[in-house]
Amino acid sequence: MTQPLRIAIAGLGTVGVGVVRMVTAHGDRMAARAGRAIEITAVSARSRTKDRGVDLSPYGWEDDPVALARRDDVDLIVEVMGGEDGPAKVLTETALGSGKHVVTANKAMMARHGQALAELAEANGAVLRYEAAVAGGIPIMKALTEGLAGNGIERVMGVMNGTCNYILTQMEQTGADYADVLMKAQQLGYAEADPAFDVGGIDAAHKLALLAATSFGTRVDFDGVQIEGIEQVSLADIEQAREMGYRVKLLGIARMGEDGLEQRMQPVLVPASSSVGRLDGVTNMVIVEGDFVGRTVFTGPGAGEGPTASAILGDVIDIARGLTVPAFGQPAGTLIAANRAATAGPASHYLRLTLTDAPGTLAQVAQALAKHGISINRMRQNDHEGEIAPVLIVTHNCARTDLDAALAEIAGSPASLAAPVALRIEEV
Amino acid sequence: MTQPLRIAIAGLGTVGVGVVRMVTAHGDRMAARAGRAIEITAVSARSRTKDRGVDLSPYGWEDDPVALARRDDVDLIVEVMGGEDGPAKVLTETALGSGKHVVTANKAMMARHGQALAELAEANGAVLRYEAAVAGGIPIMKALTEGLAGNGIERVMGVMNGTCNYILTQMEQTGADYADVLMKAQQLGYAEADPAFDVGGIDAAHKLALLAATSFGTRVDFDGVQIEGIEQVSLADIEQAREMGYRVKLLGIARMGEDGLEQRMQPVLVPASSSVGRLDGVTNMVIVEGDFVGRTVFTGPGAGEGPTASAILGDVIDIARGLTVPAFGQPAGTLIAANRAATAGPASHYLRLTLTDAPGTLAQVAQALAKHGISINRMRQNDHEGEIAPVLIVTHNCARTDLDAALAEIAGSPASLAAPVALRIEEV
Repeated sequence: MTQPLRIAIAGLGTVGVGVVRMVTAHGDRMAARAGRAIEITAVSARSRTKDRGVDLSPYGWEDDPVALARRDDVDLIVEVMGGEDGPAKVLTETALGSGKHVVTANKAMMARHGQALAELAEANGAVLRYEAAVAGGIPIMKALTEGLAGNGIERVMGVMNGTCNYILTQMEQTGADYADVLMKAQQLGYAEADPAFDVGGIDAAHKLALLAATSFGTRVDFDGVQIEGIEQVSLADIEQAREMGYRVKLLGIARMGEDGLEQRMQPVLVPASSSVGRLDGVTNMVIVEGDFVGRTVFTGPGAGEGPTASAILGDVIDIARGLTVPAFGQPAGTLIAANRAATAGPASHYLRLTLTDAPGTLAQVAQALAKHGISINRMRQNDHEGEIAPVLIVTHNCARTDLDAALAEIAGSPASLAAPVALRIEEV
Repeated sequence: MTQPLRIAIAGLGTVGVGVVRMVTAHGDRMAARAGRAIEITAVSARSRTKDRGVDLSPYGWEDDPVALARRDDVDLIVEVMGGEDGPAKVLTETALGSGKHVVTANKAMMARHGQALAELAEANGAVLRYEAAVAGGIPIMKALTEGLAGNGIERVMGVMNGTCNYILTQMEQTGADYADVLMKAQQLGYAEADPAFDVGGIDAAHKLALLAATSFGTRVDFDGVQIEGIEQVSLADIEQAREMGYRVKLLGIARMGEDGLEQRMQPVLVPASSSVGRLDGVTNMVIVEGDFVGRTVFTGPGAGEGPTASAILGDVIDIARGLTVPAFGQPAGTLIAANRAATAGPASHYLRLTLTDAPGTLAQVAQALAKHGISINRMRQNDHEGEIAPVLIVTHNCARTDLDAALAEIAGSPASLAAPVALRIEEV
């Protein structure tokens, strides 16, 4: 193992440049740790002439990223172009098919095509890793596939989209509306010009699907994730939740139940004093509950040049050392196609109803809830002016189907002036 | 790699039994992940007849643990007897010397003899791992030696002794004295009958020395850790600190500075709102700051049957997979013997002075501090009765040597009625 590990970088955006910088800064350290040198031999990006602040002259250049996979002087491809299909996928398939290793930060590609790519890698004696795709700099895939590998995982949860957590935190702290905060996040570069992937929960759901597959030994099932974004979260709910001791978070939860695999990415209320509730800004958090280890919590930067490069180089060093852990922690052929759980388990819910301020209205609401077996834990009607009475309710544990039936009834009544809001309260 | 990995367990206390239980419960899962079966073939403990709640009849038995290392049907020893010398060390040396792998939870042995044992392992093609020795179920050694291996580590910190954190938390929450809480902790089994290793900071310092070696690529230097236990932490300081927005924690800090490696395990004040400040009870926390990854925080159970077994089996699965990362993340021969930093860097300090209630006393104190270049950030003298005036001071950044000189002067004055208390305020 004294030959250098020769790597090529496909994509020279922030992350690709970060990888160049990190290898330049810490090549000696990495060689000491890996027992062999790690050398960048070639790169590819859209523009060869753009000034990226790093010297690319020592490296070979390819206009076509896929050509990197055909070079004789490349053992491993760092894929940081992104995109679930297109060149990233062709490059990855070409590399793995010819026995070259791939380290990728591409959560969309892995969530969609992870199973096929893992099989291709194993069939060709190549290693496929993607630590950077999930929760940025936090070495969570390693923890799940290796450090905690002996455990039966009971639940895995994560706040894994910095944009969403930033927006929700800012709404709470500044009292600004969703649209205003989103615009500010875009100006600061925290949110993309097209924010749908982030605020719609898709990006975080990609990560959850990868966590779930690795936690439960199941084939990655992105289409099985119930996804709800934060676009509908109102300032009123954030403020009312806070008054009742909760915070609103875009939280992913995966759990293997008797009726199958439950995967949800949705805005939920969590206790303000919980570790999830105290998470501010763009930091990510992943919580793993294992039957032997108990509860472990991993927190760190979820994105950015340095953290992403750190995760990528962690994978690269592993491969340089000869590590061959399969992509999802066990051979792809042994992963199970899990049933999808029909519904999430029962939970408390937060309700915000907008009602007419008239005698009997509350009684009507209480009756509608009782009819569907939903009992009330806390109810609050704050002082208000005018004819509109906002009513806040925290239910005891109930099934969402029962709750939806009750809310449909309430919404259909003349006493209801706006669509009822219901948010799940997650026990984290 | 289709042959089973055959393991022997030396020591059948809580942890050893946990390993038996975990292999029994999750053998299939582990085999799927490792690509080969993990089988317990032999065990050793003091008493063969004691009822431990698990069936040991399938396994070979040795009265002498060292005999496990000489069995032909053993590839790997799980050493969970403890003790920095004695049978644990003889067993480990014998096993490694004959090319058998060792997974140990023995922080004392690793902190004292880790360098020699790592060299012995490498010379004989054996693997030596000790994830369970540091922060229990948290896969932190793996994170440092692998996941974050590309980073220059700037600082590593940890709250890693559950007994101490439990005692400090209970003192704050119940207002009970140190001695009373310690007795309660002993009754509950959280503290040993001889608590000196825990409350004296030794146990946590063992862990810090291992974290530091792995973080900075240095030879483990337990004797270089400045250790101060929690025996002298008074309820008064815990309460006053809380009033000023701090909490007292037994925190380990390691940092590589220009004048060498700084390793400290001591009670410090941390902001109550920080992640360290919010850590209650027996949970452990390790914070790693890397130059590329930024700040990552790992939280989880620091002890107990399940968490420790989880860490041990994580190591065992790695070895079954053929992983050969050296004990300290790089070949033992490449670890540097670091200079010891002479002093910790400057910091704010919390001072509690017990003074006579007489005109001019505060002026005298302020002058003594000023004379040694120490400026005051906050000073508070609470309402009091009688002749004794407790004065609380938070200094600006200052060197501990200057502070000690000033405090000696204050202590020598007739106005001082008790030895001044000084606790470092750590920026975490």
